[in-house]
Amino acid sequence: MSDATPSATTAGGFSPLLRQTLAGIAGPDPTAVAEARARQDQLTKPRGALGVLEDLSVQLAGLAGQCPPPLPQSAAVAVFAGDHGVHAQGVSPWPQEVTTQMVANIVAGGAAVNVLATQVGAQVLVVDVGVAGELPELPGLARRRVRAGTADFTTGPAMTRAEALAAIETGIAVARELAAAGHTLLATGDMGIANTTPSAALVAAFTGADPADVTGRGTGIDDATWTLKVDVVRRGLSRHADAIRDGDPVDVLAAVGGLEHAAIAGFVLGAAALRLPVLLDGVIAGSAALVAAALAPEAVGAWIAGHRSVEPGAAAALRTLGLRPVLELELRLGEGTGALLAVPVVQAAARVLRDMATFDSAGVVGKDAVD
Amino acid sequence: MSDATPSATTAGGFSPLLRQTLAGIAGPDPTAVAEARARQDQLTKPRGALGVLEDLSVQLAGLAGQCPPPLPQSAAVAVFAGDHGVHAQGVSPWPQEVTTQMVANIVAGGAAVNVLATQVGAQVLVVDVGVAGELPELPGLARRRVRAGTADFTTGPAMTRAEALAAIETGIAVARELAAAGHTLLATGDMGIANTTPSAALVAAFTGADPADVTGRGTGIDDATWTLKVDVVRRGLSRHADAIRDGDPVDVLAAVGGLEHAAIAGFVLGAAALRLPVLLDGVIAGSAALVAAALAPEAVGAWIAGHRSVEPGAAAALRTLGLRPVLELELRLGEGTGALLAVPVVQAAARVLRDMATFDSAGVVGKDAVD
Repeated sequence: MSDATPSATTAGGFSPLLRQTLAGIAGPDPTAVAEARARQDQLTKPRGALGVLEDLSVQLAGLAGQCPPPLPQSAAVAVFAGDHGVHAQGVSPWPQEVTTQMVANIVAGGAAVNVLATQVGAQVLVVDVGVAGELPELPGLARRRVRAGTADFTTGPAMTRAEALAAIETGIAVARELAAAGHTLLATGDMGIANTTPSAALVAAFTGADPADVTGRGTGIDDATWTLKVDVVRRGLSRHADAIRDGDPVDVLAAVGGLEHAAIAGFVLGAAALRLPVLLDGVIAGSAALVAAALAPEAVGAWIAGHRSVEPGAAAALRTLGLRPVLELELRLGEGTGALLAVPVVQAAARVLRDMATFDSAGVVGKDAVD
Repeated sequence: MSDATPSATTAGGFSPLLRQTLAGIAGPDPTAVAEARARQDQLTKPRGALGVLEDLSVQLAGLAGQCPPPLPQSAAVAVFAGDHGVHAQGVSPWPQEVTTQMVANIVAGGAAVNVLATQVGAQVLVVDVGVAGELPELPGLARRRVRAGTADFTTGPAMTRAEALAAIETGIAVARELAAAGHTLLATGDMGIANTTPSAALVAAFTGADPADVTGRGTGIDDATWTLKVDVVRRGLSRHADAIRDGDPVDVLAAVGGLEHAAIAGFVLGAAALRLPVLLDGVIAGSAALVAAALAPEAVGAWIAGHRSVEPGAAAALRTLGLRPVLELELRLGEGTGALLAVPVVQAAARVLRDMATFDSAGVVGKDAVD
């Protein structure tokens, strides 16, 4: 690809920030993992009785490199917003300007993501990484627009490789800024009318699934629109078959993805490099995580799937990533809602490992009988 | 039955408290339900996109009789503790005194239920309704022992009808006391070595399921112990076939249940009469709720299944009750852990209905396009 901008002058077009981030990603600390598993078996409960909480606690320990891990008490969700040229194909009944309106709604505190953030004590940061419409300066809105919406991927690449890399770097930078502000549990969010269409294309491209199996109904489209949407995804994959066959993850992202997908890919890579846990929301995050995992497979150790979206592409992405969703509440909203609802579960997992009594400390003798 | 005590002098042996409670239970308020459904469709999201949260919000509105319902902000879990004569049959590898030790651990704040209660901001109340061992006076322990553990249900009734009624009334009284203390969201908890065995017997008796299909591995028993446990349940059901065939729920409870099951049945009836939402924990709560639903079918409108336990009897009970579990985290601990983890989800559901912007208030025009 020849789209590299002056800011991406290294081999492969990767900037120092991206190279440093990828180089900083490593797998779980085996000592902390072993300590966490051993400690779980000493706590006053039957072995394994806390199910997913035990697995999460071990993951957090391995990520932090200590047992017990610190409580991931300060949560923040980054809502990456973008628009999509493929909207012109009629894949969504919602006008494109709803992206801008909903960004304003989130900044004003009126959206679902705000309400759930209040419930779980998380901060909301909205990042315009690629909205098409005009947005004024607003408190709580980070203006990091790489371009004003993608191009229609059925007629050409959604964006250039350089733009995809710039949006990835934006995501990395946001993760770093939230960490620098003291947040210890990150969550992905998204806003972008039509963004389940590039998500389906990315999932199909990275998993090899048929578009019909990973294309969902988004906001709730009818059969005719769904059939059209599947065809749009199929045409996009066909149009960009060369890039998909070549397998460069950034090129595939640039071909059929969205700017918020690119930013989320960077965000979850940035979290992994910082060794901070990051909750993935729905299908937009799942498809972005496929891009990120292709760049740095060990990053998956920092990721927790908050919720299994109704979107079929979400389940396909999580299967490929080997992630078990914490919640299954039939949400199909995005914004970060599914990730935020899992925040207390993740915090509870860390708290269990830190605060529960052991058989010895509590004077419970029963364990000897079952060992 | 001739076991009625002086405190249960009315027809059927029901005290004024129990009769008043049952008479006070009614279905959801249809006006509030309709208002909640209509309001959900005005909020800035696609219709139905919040899945289970929308259903919960409608349930809360119907229960409270107002839309939006008050936030169920102050949560409390009542951990009812009891012992089980059927322990003598070898259904659990844990010694019976572990019940007493774990009650002390919970009162001291070291158990899983305490850690999760701290996470979700809930109060823990431990109620000795039928522990066999000695327990000192401890702050945070309500001493309401009806008898010191049940009898072995394979050789006779677990308790008398009068004892079952007394434990039910204890549960009602605890619900009232927690409500009087300002709690607006209740949760069931339990502690009792071997208590999954009477749970399986109750589920089999109330659903008609075969014991092998609703008997689980409790704390994690091996194949031989599980086979024995199924046989114990089968013998209990056979021993009390007359009571089960007659179908008086209190008689069935007295025959094969536990004192904590009776108390939880009363607790969830008491919550329903107070029109307060109550989160059911795992299989002990599910089996107790079957007893309660047999006494007052409309009480189910106040109940929310917090978690689907790994125990197969839990899923069977929830199916019969028509309840969809909020969480599925492969827990099999009890104590109230699965109920508590669902507290933030229930609170989020109420918060959505109260705090999210509407399309009109947020100036989002897209809705017209999809109506």
